[in-house]
Amino acid sequence: MVGPGKVLLLENIRDLGSISAAGRAMGMSYKRAWSLVEEMNAAFRLPVVLPARGGAGGGGAAVTGAGLAVIAAYRGFEAAALEAGAGELAALRGMLADMSD
Amino acid sequence: MVGPGKVLLLENIRDLGSISAAGRAMGMSYKRAWSLVEEMNAAFRLPVVLPARGGAGGGGAAVTGAGLAVIAAYRGFEAAALEAGAGELAALRGMLADMSD
Repeated sequence: MVGPGKVLLLENIRDLGSISAAGRAMGMSYKRAWSLVEEMNAAFRLPVVLPARGGAGGGGAAVTGAGLAVIAAYRGFEAAALEAGAGELAALRGMLADMSD
Repeated sequence: MVGPGKVLLLENIRDLGSISAAGRAMGMSYKRAWSLVEEMNAAFRLPVVLPARGGAGGGGAAVTGAGLAVIAAYRGFEAAALEAGAGELAALRGMLADMSD
């Protein structure tokens, strides 16, 4: 479905207005970023990114309303999950040999 | 730290009493299963698996009390997180093109 990497890519496209700039910000090739966008556009009922390809200068890309809803639901899930699981997560962390991991 | 794969490996070692059998149950080589066990034993303050190597028949392995606590904390985190995030997760799933993923 989506995970932290794809959602961060969506957020970067939203903020930078470009698939290549978003990928670059994550140390990702344009090809890889594009392929993740295609996967997401195929996975969701409505496209999450509208790319403007091939214009002069390469064109930009916009995250759609559906894409913004995906970001919101994912980040909402994450926040709720981390808050509810905070006690168990702290217990798990407390068992680690050090906190560097 | 730990994720679903390592925790499932711990659970399989707990249930099967053997690193190789646990790895086999997950389609994993003995070498890979052993390496994950070593990573976990190094990551946690107390060992999570006590292997009995080299005995006749290869020996077995036991999950320690610390390992059982790791399993409990991880599964507790997961259950709390999924329960708290159920609404957002349903929203996300509802946006998928189909439910096959």
